[in-house]
Amino acid sequence: MNGLMMDYQLTIPSILKRVNQVYPNKRVISKLANEQIHEYTYRDMYKRIIRLMNALKKLGIKPEDRVATFAWNSYRHLELYFAIPSLKAILHTLNIRLFPEQMEFIINHAEDQIIFIDKSLVDVITPLQGKIGKVRNFIVMDDGGKEPSGKLANAIDYEELLSSSLEEECFLQIDENTASALCYTSGTTGEPKGVLYSHRSTYLHSFALCLAGSLAICERDNVLPVVPMFHVNAWAIPYASPMSGANLVFPGPNMLGKSLAELMESYRVTLAAGVPTIWNLLYHHLKNNKHDLASLRAMVIGGSAVPKSLIDNFYKDFGLNIIHAWGMTETSPLGTASILTKEMESLTYNEQLNFKAKQGPPVAGIEIRAIDDDGKEVSWDGKSIGELEVRGPWVAKEYYKNPELKEQFASDGWFKTGDVVCIDENGFMEITDRKKDLIKTRGEWISSVDMENYVMGLKGVLEACAIGRQDNVKDEAPVLYVILSKDAAETIKAKDIYTHLSNKFAHWQLPKLSDIHFVDSIPKTSVGKFDKKELRKRLK
Amino acid sequence: MNGLMMDYQLTIPSILKRVNQVYPNKRVISKLANEQIHEYTYRDMYKRIIRLMNALKKLGIKPEDRVATFAWNSYRHLELYFAIPSLKAILHTLNIRLFPEQMEFIINHAEDQIIFIDKSLVDVITPLQGKIGKVRNFIVMDDGGKEPSGKLANAIDYEELLSSSLEEECFLQIDENTASALCYTSGTTGEPKGVLYSHRSTYLHSFALCLAGSLAICERDNVLPVVPMFHVNAWAIPYASPMSGANLVFPGPNMLGKSLAELMESYRVTLAAGVPTIWNLLYHHLKNNKHDLASLRAMVIGGSAVPKSLIDNFYKDFGLNIIHAWGMTETSPLGTASILTKEMESLTYNEQLNFKAKQGPPVAGIEIRAIDDDGKEVSWDGKSIGELEVRGPWVAKEYYKNPELKEQFASDGWFKTGDVVCIDENGFMEITDRKKDLIKTRGEWISSVDMENYVMGLKGVLEACAIGRQDNVKDEAPVLYVILSKDAAETIKAKDIYTHLSNKFAHWQLPKLSDIHFVDSIPKTSVGKFDKKELRKRLK
Repeated sequence: MNGLMMDYQLTIPSILKRVNQVYPNKRVISKLANEQIHEYTYRDMYKRIIRLMNALKKLGIKPEDRVATFAWNSYRHLELYFAIPSLKAILHTLNIRLFPEQMEFIINHAEDQIIFIDKSLVDVITPLQGKIGKVRNFIVMDDGGKEPSGKLANAIDYEELLSSSLEEECFLQIDENTASALCYTSGTTGEPKGVLYSHRSTYLHSFALCLAGSLAICERDNVLPVVPMFHVNAWAIPYASPMSGANLVFPGPNMLGKSLAELMESYRVTLAAGVPTIWNLLYHHLKNNKHDLASLRAMVIGGSAVPKSLIDNFYKDFGLNIIHAWGMTETSPLGTASILTKEMESLTYNEQLNFKAKQGPPVAGIEIRAIDDDGKEVSWDGKSIGELEVRGPWVAKEYYKNPELKEQFASDGWFKTGDVVCIDENGFMEITDRKKDLIKTRGEWISSVDMENYVMGLKGVLEACAIGRQDNVKDEAPVLYVILSKDAAETIKAKDIYTHLSNKFAHWQLPKLSDIHFVDSIPKTSVGKFDKKELRKRLK
Repeated sequence: MNGLMMDYQLTIPSILKRVNQVYPNKRVISKLANEQIHEYTYRDMYKRIIRLMNALKKLGIKPEDRVATFAWNSYRHLELYFAIPSLKAILHTLNIRLFPEQMEFIINHAEDQIIFIDKSLVDVITPLQGKIGKVRNFIVMDDGGKEPSGKLANAIDYEELLSSSLEEECFLQIDENTASALCYTSGTTGEPKGVLYSHRSTYLHSFALCLAGSLAICERDNVLPVVPMFHVNAWAIPYASPMSGANLVFPGPNMLGKSLAELMESYRVTLAAGVPTIWNLLYHHLKNNKHDLASLRAMVIGGSAVPKSLIDNFYKDFGLNIIHAWGMTETSPLGTASILTKEMESLTYNEQLNFKAKQGPPVAGIEIRAIDDDGKEVSWDGKSIGELEVRGPWVAKEYYKNPELKEQFASDGWFKTGDVVCIDENGFMEITDRKKDLIKTRGEWISSVDMENYVMGLKGVLEACAIGRQDNVKDEAPVLYVILSKDAAETIKAKDIYTHLSNKFAHWQLPKLSDIHFVDSIPKTSVGKFDKKELRKRLK
């Protein structure tokens, strides 16, 4: 029909132009590898991004080319977040925590042409030289880190590149369905899989972070993304903050509690985002050191399930509010965020805590459903469990250059997350387990996570990991690996674990005494999760 | 490129499904024409919408068909807001305040097939019967209003229609660029022009209302849209509230101060939206009557410029916060909203008031610029003025069935608003005048609005209206029409007006004494603005 609305495209450069025009004096603060602080305005940033775009063009970067970054959270990484997609090239953020062979695979699979790398990280990349054929140049960003011991061929200094570059704007017309960024999942099974974000998905996802009912990022905020910019776009905070006019505070490589607390205090951080481990470190720092964190309205936690005790302790000890969020590489990532409803205000503290420990309702734009083994949608009753499936404008349709990898994509257009969840009457989702880690006993499912958490609640238990073992009678029987503290090693026996578990689990769900193993260590993946695949292999 | 994100379509039924799934127990409260309260949940609403969709299908409504509404703000109008676009038909909201001949033109131009009409409004439509050829049916919604004196042919009762309808869901696949709603501008010049909204524009605009930096509608809100659902989609509040899980409170036909204050108090309204006249009535009611409005976090005002004194008085007398917003039918409408920045917190009350009286910065998604007479963009310096142009995903590209009407659409894709504005260093926009109402004197512009407001600041002046008169020496010379209060009629002379004006305006800008006319009335348009076109005609 004629007369419809403008074909206005939702693109990353429109965010960039907005921040330069509406919020030019708002600030970006970056802590560098040498602990110094760098500070500039969005207007400064804008000018440097224009230079960077011209430099990239001069280096031969064209639409659809992949340009990689290997860097901490800082202003230069932010410049790359805007400059690369604004040329219709693809920002490929390399996860610095991956194993060398994964890194090699990913760089080659993506066919990266240039890698922008922080000086403090050069030594991680030098051993890969010669194995990553398509990479033409390394652009080294001097973040004040130690001089690298190795040397990169074809290295160019970032600041020299910029200073010799043009100042003229060189924006392109961009269709919103153009690819903007690429990130590989850190999956524990199979080879890493690439997720290709678009301008549209990034723009809408950034919008979603600014919704009052979600993370509510706005002009009044000073946002500290501790979540790394080298993975899942740092939850799109580097886009959502400029879009809304919030100041950005980047932590650089130092993510210890002391450094974060000091940044939060000095720059009146209002919102911070990170994974549970980081906030755990911060918690212990705050226990022993005084900081004025009154400006902090919320800490967003995602990446893995947050222990209820951490939410509880932060609130009880420091009055700090945690927002538990859920997402995946394939979902940009924001899928759900546990924001209490108005009605929940009248609940007791413990009841509220139970809701805060869930992953919460879907943010506007995202649809969720839970599917049982028969492929039927389970009801939102707070009891039924099923595999979480999601869909929305910032959810992946397939994997990059891997369209044959279909098993995670339902035929009716939903993405199967592999997470097993329970959704309650309030729309609050709670993750029970990863689907492949559930233990099936006599036709019923036991959550390995539930069992682990319960065992870890026993004083003297440091770590506990549960997997299933094939069993002729029971389908699967639970097997427990337990690490005890030194003090407890003499006193806690398998029988004590068994007795403890029987307070919560039914008789037929319990592991045999001979299936409770005391060990010195449990194998872990590159991102610090229990490596259950390895454990299952050993069991066989 | 392969591997991109899902082609998830941004549509109105996805908002509907979301509210039914995530917020089924949140509520819609409606005050009816008989002053009674109707209340139900979004779950109830959803079921009735399904029935309504089936009923519309049975009545022969197909994609692209126009279905009109002629109704106050209430739950039934809300049902129509969702049901009609969910069938890919077009919701055409008729403005009940238009003159009969405009109404006739609009209904025929849109080729409406069915009109849904509140019982209390039937008598407005009956005289048009026979002149609106394509209308097949009238569906009468019994809002408790008086029995109409006239009779509509082919009238069906809304509740009978629903109760005889099916309960099965009948959703369609909808491309987001499908038309969803139609609204005609109440322009004072020429024939009314239709603006055709799409699912995409409506969805994104609703998102924008929920941004923390904008109106921040969220699950904690009880929203009272006093802005009529019969014009510009009631600023999309009927979509944004369900999307975010907010409760809705509808005022029905009674928009007097008492009724609104009682609703606000009883239903703990947190956010209300309306035009200045409405809030003026409320203000005077509150002056003489006690109400607990502590729950009210903000009143949004748009539609025309808000006198600074109203913002000031609401805050000083009742601690109530006004958000001044700007938009047009062609912009869905939300374009700008005057939310003070963090930095402005440290300003004095009066400095803050000056910013609150502006129309504010563009909301995320909307771009603005001001263009001078030479077609050049003026800088954001708080001094330069130019015609406001906007673009964004919820701005019109052209008029419905009137593609030859091009003068408001710049060749480079911006919409020319006809408003003359000044934008300051903070990105805060202030409307100076309508472009056609500016008075050009000796090559410089005088704002007619400025002159009027300044004259109205003189005690004893009730109304003042300024227009330009052709003048051989000055290009145009200002002419003033002034209405005095009874008491002042004897004491205020043209010379007093002149002297008063000379405190603010330069000598060459002042009207001649013979151009200051004291009158008993000033002609007004259907929406209550000064009819300057008529005045200019009389002058000639």
